[in-house]
Amino acid sequence: MKFQYVLTALAGLGLAESKSSPRDRAKALLKKMTWEEKIAQMGSIRRLLKLGPEVDEENFEKRYQLQHGTIGFGPMFNWILDALPLVNKVRENEIKNSRLHIPFITVTDSVNGLFISGGTVFPSNLAMSSTFNFPLFKNITAAIREEQLSIGVNWVLSPPLDIAWEPRYGRIGELYGEDAYLTGEFGHAYVQIMQDKDKDGNIKVACTVKHFVYGESRGGVNTASQYGGINHLFNDQLRPYIRALEADPAALMVSYASVDLIPMSMNEYMIQDILRGKLGFHGVVMSDAGSISNMYTQSRVATSYADAGLQALKAGLQMELSPGNPAVFPNLINSVKDKQVARLIDEAVLNLLTIKFATGLFDNDVPDVETANNTLRQSAHLELAREACREGIVLLKNDGILPQTPKKVALLGPFGELLNFGSYAAINASNPKWGESLHASLKSALGEKNVKFVPAVDLLATTDDSGIADAVAAAKEAGFAVLVLGSLSVPMEDPLFKKRTDGEFFAHADLGLPGLQQQLLDAVLDAKVPTVLILTGGQPFVLNNSTLRSNAIIHSLLGGELTNSALVEIITGKVNPSGKLTVSMPQLDSAMPAFYDYLPSDDAGGSPDRLGFRSAYQWPMLQKASPMPFGFGLSYTTFDISTPTAEYKKGEVHIRVTVKNTGQVAGKEVVQVYHRPNTSVGLEFPVRRLIRFDKVNLEAGESKDVEFSIPNKELGYYVNARLVVHEGLYNFWAGSSSRVEDLKGVNVTVTL
Amino acid sequence: MKFQYVLTALAGLGLAESKSSPRDRAKALLKKMTWEEKIAQMGSIRRLLKLGPEVDEENFEKRYQLQHGTIGFGPMFNWILDALPLVNKVRENEIKNSRLHIPFITVTDSVNGLFISGGTVFPSNLAMSSTFNFPLFKNITAAIREEQLSIGVNWVLSPPLDIAWEPRYGRIGELYGEDAYLTGEFGHAYVQIMQDKDKDGNIKVACTVKHFVYGESRGGVNTASQYGGINHLFNDQLRPYIRALEADPAALMVSYASVDLIPMSMNEYMIQDILRGKLGFHGVVMSDAGSISNMYTQSRVATSYADAGLQALKAGLQMELSPGNPAVFPNLINSVKDKQVARLIDEAVLNLLTIKFATGLFDNDVPDVETANNTLRQSAHLELAREACREGIVLLKNDGILPQTPKKVALLGPFGELLNFGSYAAINASNPKWGESLHASLKSALGEKNVKFVPAVDLLATTDDSGIADAVAAAKEAGFAVLVLGSLSVPMEDPLFKKRTDGEFFAHADLGLPGLQQQLLDAVLDAKVPTVLILTGGQPFVLNNSTLRSNAIIHSLLGGELTNSALVEIITGKVNPSGKLTVSMPQLDSAMPAFYDYLPSDDAGGSPDRLGFRSAYQWPMLQKASPMPFGFGLSYTTFDISTPTAEYKKGEVHIRVTVKNTGQVAGKEVVQVYHRPNTSVGLEFPVRRLIRFDKVNLEAGESKDVEFSIPNKELGYYVNARLVVHEGLYNFWAGSSSRVEDLKGVNVTVTL
Repeated sequence: MKFQYVLTALAGLGLAESKSSPRDRAKALLKKMTWEEKIAQMGSIRRLLKLGPEVDEENFEKRYQLQHGTIGFGPMFNWILDALPLVNKVRENEIKNSRLHIPFITVTDSVNGLFISGGTVFPSNLAMSSTFNFPLFKNITAAIREEQLSIGVNWVLSPPLDIAWEPRYGRIGELYGEDAYLTGEFGHAYVQIMQDKDKDGNIKVACTVKHFVYGESRGGVNTASQYGGINHLFNDQLRPYIRALEADPAALMVSYASVDLIPMSMNEYMIQDILRGKLGFHGVVMSDAGSISNMYTQSRVATSYADAGLQALKAGLQMELSPGNPAVFPNLINSVKDKQVARLIDEAVLNLLTIKFATGLFDNDVPDVETANNTLRQSAHLELAREACREGIVLLKNDGILPQTPKKVALLGPFGELLNFGSYAAINASNPKWGESLHASLKSALGEKNVKFVPAVDLLATTDDSGIADAVAAAKEAGFAVLVLGSLSVPMEDPLFKKRTDGEFFAHADLGLPGLQQQLLDAVLDAKVPTVLILTGGQPFVLNNSTLRSNAIIHSLLGGELTNSALVEIITGKVNPSGKLTVSMPQLDSAMPAFYDYLPSDDAGGSPDRLGFRSAYQWPMLQKASPMPFGFGLSYTTFDISTPTAEYKKGEVHIRVTVKNTGQVAGKEVVQVYHRPNTSVGLEFPVRRLIRFDKVNLEAGESKDVEFSIPNKELGYYVNARLVVHEGLYNFWAGSSSRVEDLKGVNVTVTL
Repeated sequence: MKFQYVLTALAGLGLAESKSSPRDRAKALLKKMTWEEKIAQMGSIRRLLKLGPEVDEENFEKRYQLQHGTIGFGPMFNWILDALPLVNKVRENEIKNSRLHIPFITVTDSVNGLFISGGTVFPSNLAMSSTFNFPLFKNITAAIREEQLSIGVNWVLSPPLDIAWEPRYGRIGELYGEDAYLTGEFGHAYVQIMQDKDKDGNIKVACTVKHFVYGESRGGVNTASQYGGINHLFNDQLRPYIRALEADPAALMVSYASVDLIPMSMNEYMIQDILRGKLGFHGVVMSDAGSISNMYTQSRVATSYADAGLQALKAGLQMELSPGNPAVFPNLINSVKDKQVARLIDEAVLNLLTIKFATGLFDNDVPDVETANNTLRQSAHLELAREACREGIVLLKNDGILPQTPKKVALLGPFGELLNFGSYAAINASNPKWGESLHASLKSALGEKNVKFVPAVDLLATTDDSGIADAVAAAKEAGFAVLVLGSLSVPMEDPLFKKRTDGEFFAHADLGLPGLQQQLLDAVLDAKVPTVLILTGGQPFVLNNSTLRSNAIIHSLLGGELTNSALVEIITGKVNPSGKLTVSMPQLDSAMPAFYDYLPSDDAGGSPDRLGFRSAYQWPMLQKASPMPFGFGLSYTTFDISTPTAEYKKGEVHIRVTVKNTGQVAGKEVVQVYHRPNTSVGLEFPVRRLIRFDKVNLEAGESKDVEFSIPNKELGYYVNARLVVHEGLYNFWAGSSSRVEDLKGVNVTVTL
């Protein structure tokens, strides 16, 4: 369906009936554009609305002239069905009345779903990856795509492909965890499904892989520097990109980091030599929000905003994301006589217009509110969310206390009535309109009078411990305590923002519980009340010896709108937990790194063998450092995974196991396959690396055979940016986690 | 002086009267060698002796055939004057009776001085650098050289040039601290002085710069992997090498680390492209002890010891240090038909023989015991040690309690009768034969009856806190407590080895005090007894809020034989402390990195500005992380360092300050000059970097002008391994530490 004026406009440009490719149409349009119009395409009006909703006319006017290629919604607490008519009016006006009738493209974040209220709130990425349920993830990605599309979002700032190797880093909740293979698989599927084509051959929602590259910065600090090294980059940080780029994402966002001392927004080597050259990426390269101006204000590598803009453009940046002031690319207006700049701007705008044509913006109408209303929060989507909320929860410890339906429960801790879903979740954490709290869920399940809620301590303040005694009294009275403790991650607009301790801008030198939460927990445990500890937050926590006294420990990560109800289903046994950690939990704040795929020498050369004991004063003990590492998670049933068999034929390794539910209840197990070459390969290879996984649903007593096929190419690693596959012996292991004690091994010889 | 048989031997080889260069003489000799003799030159008999001393004949026989290029002494508790006649006999026998009369060269570690007992025990390197007294360091290096030379050590495994950027790393006590400039200056001077030539033009003692590259490994683990990245390497880790290589060190030792996934013992890129190619090093490249066999056993990059040896040789290793079994290079004996191997072995042996000729081994007699006896521990050396012990101690806090000569003192803590000088100090930590303990020093100064010593707790065990009450009672009784607490670093032969928590093989996930030492300190402080806390150990410690209640805190690092007496001189005010930290003290175990020369973006992008508060949950606060950073240290007097003036002329920046002693007693102040370019330089430059320092001795009231000249070349930094010096504005600061509040700034414009 097209508006008549769009048809007219396109006809006027000779583009209406074109059967040309999006790129050819973009080329034709580019020729008609002024210098100013081109530069404007490279910028954005990220916050179209004010709370109300109403259009922020002042912001619009200020930015329109030189930064109107893309628009975003702004405040996430606006309800989309209220906002959509306003947004559509702005969209239509641009198409109808601008000189060349070039539509805005709407670009938003997309972590838990829509980045404006009114859509289904799915779990954040870390919880999604913890499901290890790849078919479910794909279905949810399709659901998010349909919700985004229904409100006219044709371009999302997802998926993130950073690997969570730095436990202090505050954005781990936004990521798919610490494993490069898992992240690559999730990222690849995300791009493939989001960029699915409609019946007219248009990309539904363009994707942005990000943040190129990120996640290992000094001290875990958000915008801090990272190390480079070509082998490390290719074998670790770039692996998810190499995989996701197979799905041809429309765009890529550079990170805030300096890599090998050069900020990514000006890192010509990483953008041109590596990304364009070695990885063959040809889409739009965009900044992160403010990352170009950071070159002047934070990294101090530019002498002015204008200098920053020129350096960024010359390094390869083609679009500026600038939520705050000032935008930097508008300064390019003064470089009209610079031929290199003109050429780079033409290349950038060509790439940007190509996305607008490829997503059908020139050919389709703006979205109608009724379709949006029918699409958003449809029951199928809510059912998917429910499934993900259930499977993204990880049971870390259970002495047998669970499952249990207690008669009475004391719900303790400052998160009892909060929704802690992440800093890109479009929710108001303290407003029940946005979802059900654990308190509400428990009351539904157990009856209102059987649940006593005592928040007891503040999220962050350490000044008032007077509530702890009440909490202990309530626990004793009920005889069963559920503590929900953790680290708050909410959007910047949230009324609780000043209590936030997790998410972007945060780095955790302390991986314990903020405020007086540990004291609350200690007091309840001292009272010897049976206790279930629920952790909430998008981060690993250090579980000290006191904490480990809890009878059961559950990590709910950053969930979705049905996570609290799923927690109650798990406590009471209606749901059997099946999530697995995708980020390892360190034993000490400083026992880092804690990721499972360290190098053999990382755990060697220490004193334990000489001294006969281990302590924190003579670390290393990487191998022992995380008793709850990647891939770990418990169930209410038990599984037996057989010793794998392996066969190499026709260029593929075939690994087969039989997995049996040996317990009394139905459950799901994640069969994980790891490998490493057992031969001389020219560089250090991790002790083991995930190469396949499958989540298997089994009734009590049931068993299934599972087979994995691994093309020999996937056994390769990169030496100097070149993929090398080596003949020889390989070790494979299959099992239920990355822990040695949970794996059984088999060897196979690979020939080429 | 030459033995007749040496002359005869050399004459037989046509080398006796040669005026040829060492290299030409080596070439001539090489031609006469068999395959087996060549391979033997590349190996060592590291432990010639057993405790007694007596020659370890079994070890000698086992190794002699294929690894006899170098020898070492073995057990450090042998007394050198007893051992020397035995060693000389072995040396003479080799010269006299081996086929080609090629002398052994004696190679030893050299940290605190000799690596066998009987020499002067100077402070370890971290304490030496903390003196910031460069002339003193040079004099001490010359003293160590004379002591080494007097016992026939012609080759030392020093200086280390690793930068101490990883506070958990256990070998920090062996290093010159965290600053690349300071490390480069100390390393350069060390090589220059050690390799000073005698009257015949022979190098006195050949040096080994090490560990190429090291010190930033994952988790602080001794042999763990490190990241690469050409800009990071050249601007940080390689800077000390670039400086030290100007003094033409005879040898270089690779590190245990993998750099960018490739173990250094097989890292052809780092050895050939970087070290040989870019840095122009042409000396011997040796392994670290066992680092080649580690390729098979630890890093698992080799399929056998033989494979490891071949890979190492082909990457560029020319000599194997192998204290234990097995040595790997002897396997090369089987590669006689491999032309590449033969060529590489010839190059290696040529390099090795060149050192033997260059150090005069073919021309000089073995050392005589009488000269050694006159050289070792001569009073001039002991006076230098005394000075270094005094100036290497750092006063971290003083509320006015010091200086004081208390009538009575309670000396508390497990280090009261120990000597904690480092794992390469040839001392028995618990035997008064090797030096004076703090207990003994205090008794000398205050009278035996006025010092009550209560060790109170074990160095490491946490089982028995029963001594704490006695300690508190003693403190109350005395009215003045001196606690000496820390982390033990002793050689492997030490009886206390199993109590070690610091030094090689150690990594500190916990930077607090081992065992129950913190509890002891807390109890004494709770009792409100005036308390002086003395820290001992070659590491930064986290000083928690309880610790900071101490009235005075002194870090004595890993000292030398007069450190305990110097501590008493400082407590009583006979000596005014003048040491400055060369490694920053983190605020939390996990508040890392803590080094002062972080990048601007490392402390940016966090939440504090948005939230209005800082906590460990929303780090970054690198800038605030270390209130006791590099360059920090207190005095009993006060100094005023004027705002610097700056002038640029003839290619040099001239910085001038006036420093005045504004207090009541004489003292020494370290004037430190930092800089950074204030222009666009293509990469991130640290917030500030040390570029000059000078230690100034001032009477009370006295003032002096200090001028520093800095050639513009030193303002450069490396982009892609190329030195770039940029025109433009530069910021300079001068002051008494790296803290912002201790610095005053000036700008200067540099033209080229």
